[in-house]
Amino acid sequence: MREERKKEKGMNKPEKHLLVCASFRASGAPQGVCHKKGSVGLLTYLESELADRGLTGVTVTATGCLNVCDRGPIVVVHPDNRWYGGIDSEGAVDEVLDALEKGDAAEARLLG
Amino acid sequence: MREERKKEKGMNKPEKHLLVCASFRASGAPQGVCHKKGSVGLLTYLESELADRGLTGVTVTATGCLNVCDRGPIVVVHPDNRWYGGIDSEGAVDEVLDALEKGDAAEARLLG
Repeated sequence: MREERKKEKGMNKPEKHLLVCASFRASGAPQGVCHKKGSVGLLTYLESELADRGLTGVTVTATGCLNVCDRGPIVVVHPDNRWYGGIDSEGAVDEVLDALEKGDAAEARLLG
Repeated sequence: MREERKKEKGMNKPEKHLLVCASFRASGAPQGVCHKKGSVGLLTYLESELADRGLTGVTVTATGCLNVCDRGPIVVVHPDNRWYGGIDSEGAVDEVLDALEKGDAAEARLLG
């Protein structure tokens, strides 16, 4: 992931794409379960951890409701298609990033 | 993709995850380029096409800004990590879904 971004047609496609549910509704209002549990507050921590770890090929995107509200806050790691629940603390974010660096899944948080 | 959803730990993880940029800002206000170009209006068409085509293992999620605004509206297909630009019409959505059904990329719309 480090400095290996592919450049083609003017776009650096990320090697990893992390989605963080921010519970956006169609109107845009962030008001669902993940948002209430603080997912958006963890976005800042996630971004700073990625920078600290030198993970430059990773893009983070906040999303509308991912429809797994009872397991939230939800983070998804693509293209691995790994869905994580209960990402409600800096420690939980660290578990996901530790696994990402190892090319592993954070088993304890994995859904589906 | 048809009726082959995996069930584990109480969650049906989608086989394909389509992201549609809705330009949500941190505040939740959808006001960026993709939104202005009508990406949200195409969400309804996309959802109905998936139903018509019987693609049950596909989840669609609206996202915050994907930072490729000048190529928008943007659609991403995961876990394929295919990023598409200029998805501004029902015909463009059809191109993406036709390719998805064939297990291909919609080459003309591909970014990166």
